[in-house]
Formats: sequence, C-alpha cells, structure tokens
Amino acid sequence: MTERGLLIVLSGPSGVGKGTVRKAIFESDDNDFQYSISMTTRQMRPGEVDGVDYFFRSKEEFEELIAKGEMLEYAEYVGNYYGTPLSYVEETLAQGKDVFLEIEVQGAKQVKEKVPEGVYIFLTPPDLEELRSRIVGRGTDSIEVIDERMRVAKEEIEMMALYDYAIVNDEVPKAVKRIKEIIASEHFRVERVINKYRKMIEEL
Amino acid sequence: MTERGLLIVLSGPSGVGKGTVRKAIFESDDNDFQYSISMTTRQMRPGEVDGVDYFFRSKEEFEELIAKGEMLEYAEYVGNYYGTPLSYVEETLAQGKDVFLEIEVQGAKQVKEKVPEGVYIFLTPPDLEELRSRIVGRGTDSIEVIDERMRVAKEEIEMMALYDYAIVNDEVPKAVKRIKEIIASEHFRVERVINKYRKMIEEL
Repeated sequence: MTERGLLIVLSGPSGVGKGTVRKAIFESDDNDFQYSISMTTRQMRPGEVDGVDYFFRSKEEFEELIAKGEMLEYAEYVGNYYGTPLSYVEETLAQGKDVFLEIEVQGAKQVKEKVPEGVYIFLTPPDLEELRSRIVGRGTDSIEVIDERMRVAKEEIEMMALYDYAIVNDEVPKAVKRIKEIIASEHFRVERVINKYRKMIEEL
Repeated sequence: MTERGLLIVLSGPSGVGKGTVRKAIFESDDNDFQYSISMTTRQMRPGEVDGVDYFFRSKEEFEELIAKGEMLEYAEYVGNYYGTPLSYVEETLAQGKDVFLEIEVQGAKQVKEKVPEGVYIFLTPPDLEELRSRIVGRGTDSIEVIDERMRVAKEEIEMMALYDYAIVNDEVPKAVKRIKEIIASEHFRVERVINKYRKMIEEL
C-alpha cells in the first residue's frame, strides 16, 4: 500500500508575498510535491492555459461542484469564483505524493476543517516595523483607518493560531528553505509513520 | 524578555547508535544548542574531567538531588546512578538556548512527563525497515525465538508513540541532517511564536 502524501497549505495575510514564495519553491530543485492548480470562473487572459494556470470553468459548472461538495475550498472575489477542486488533491495524495496549496486565509480555514492532518504554514510580514508601517501608514490616515488596520492585524495574528507553523517572509530564499525543511521534517512525525511500522508487524 | 529555548530529546532502543549521531551533531557546524552534561556516581576514569564528561558526584549527593526532585531523569546501572540535573537544563532554557539530551528510553519517558513541550526524537534502527527478515530470520529459528523477537519489536514500536518524530539511522550524516531540520522547524511552530506576535501588536 502506498503511504498517503501530505497536504501542505501555505497561506497568510494578503500582500505578504505568498505567491512569490510559492513560485520560488517550485522553481527550486528537489521538490517532491505537486502544486494544486486552482479553478476559476474568471475570463482566461492572453497567454494563460487551461489546466496550467487555472482550470477555467463556467459559473454554472463551478456552482455545481460546490453543490456536490467537490470543492476543497472556494471563495468569491469581484463576482468570480476561485477554489481548489477536491478530486485532483485526493487523487494525488492517494498516489503518495504531497500536494502544495497556496491560498487565501479564508480558503485555508475551509481546508483545515476538511483535512485537519494537513501541514498548515502561515507566512508573516518581516517585522514589527513592517507591521507598524502597514498599520500606521504614512501618518496621514485618519484614526478610523488606522484602527481598522489594527483590527485586521489582530485578526491576522489570531488566524495564525489555526496553523502549525509561522514563517517570517524576510527574505524569499530563507522562507523557501524553512518551508522545505518543515515539509521534510513533517514526513518523520511519529503519527504519520507509526502505523507503517505497526502494519509491518501485523503482516508478518 | 528572552524567548525560552527548546528541550530536544534524542533517544531510541539501545544499540541504535544514539551516541554516534549525537557526537556527529555536535562535531558539525551551525549548532545553536547546548549539550546537557549528565551526572553520575561512577568513578572518574583517566582523562575525564568533572563538568565536561560528566558531573561526578557521590551516591549521597545524587540521592539527595533525587529526593529534592532536582533530577530531570535518572536511572541506575550496575550499582551507579546516571541522570540529568534539572538546574543546568532549566537555566539554559531560560537563557533562550536550546538544550540537547541524548538519553535512554526510560529516561526520555521521565523527561516527557516533566517537559511535555519538548521535542522528542526517536532513532530507529535501519533494520526495523527489514523487520520481517529480522524477526523471521532464516526460517530455521524456533517459534519461541521468533515470538520473543516479535515481542521486542512491538515494544520498540509502541515506545515510538511517545515521541514527536521517528528518524531512521540508516546513514549518520542523513540522520544528523534530519534532526537539524526538525530542530530548525520546531522553532517556527505557531504555539511557540504566537505570543511574540501578540505582544508586538499590544506594544504598537
């Protein structure tokens, strides 16, 4: 029997650089995991390829998948759906390959409910200064705007509690190295390997 | 406030090569953790230094530490005590440094009860993978011998359940690399860093 792959979820606040880190991971060597291609109802742009950049589907098709429970996660932005089809993820994990998702925090929350045994990595902004300037801005914003940003920042940190790891995105190559080490280490977690050993004994 | 260090415990069945792996880790570069020196009541051997190889103590002193609850773990072998004094470990962790213990499985069990938030790494023999041939042998052994091997193998696997990670000691450099990656990754676990972020926001 093939050992099931790991589901790895990379997320974090918008603007933190999730896409850049994900791209750097997939451009680097020694990746033994598959990137899960998202599905969308938005228009295909010039140069994009169906099944490569996204699975491009009609709104009706997408809503049918939602209704059938066949989306691992999804969200609506400016009138279009974006999401992760369950079938591809399931098939890849069953083949013993790890699947890597880079998604928004709301999507990650949905995935966590369905696949609690996944590896959840939260990408955080570099430092307090970054956080402060993100919140305070150039000092020309109203107190209401600043308060709202503060509320969002607090919310983001509390979102972190749902994750297994928090990685600072100070330098992309460092973040990539850390994420790869986490994935390697997670394969050695006792709860993931002990049944393999138990089975070996039972099958004697 | 200094962030507390991690307690890392390396253990595994006797004969698995824990000492060799620990030595290779401490001889390699980039170690940012302290090796915890054990305490013993056995005679100092020529060339050994108190406080370097072991803390050498009398049986009375050792028993007093046990009575006071000042041993993190201890065991008796051939009339002598061996153990880990709590004070050194506590002080080092409080300074924000990681502490590395390489101990027997019985000791690791004691440590786990006192420091459940430590990182517990179980080193498995490479031939655990070849369990079948190891247990069944050449097919010429008595059923009693096979049963006994089976019992020992099951016990070893169930010991594993107390640990966070299981690393196969197939090649020492590989085991060293895996252990170092685990330690690096554990520093990014959300439960270890989230309070730092909460504090950052409070202090804005």
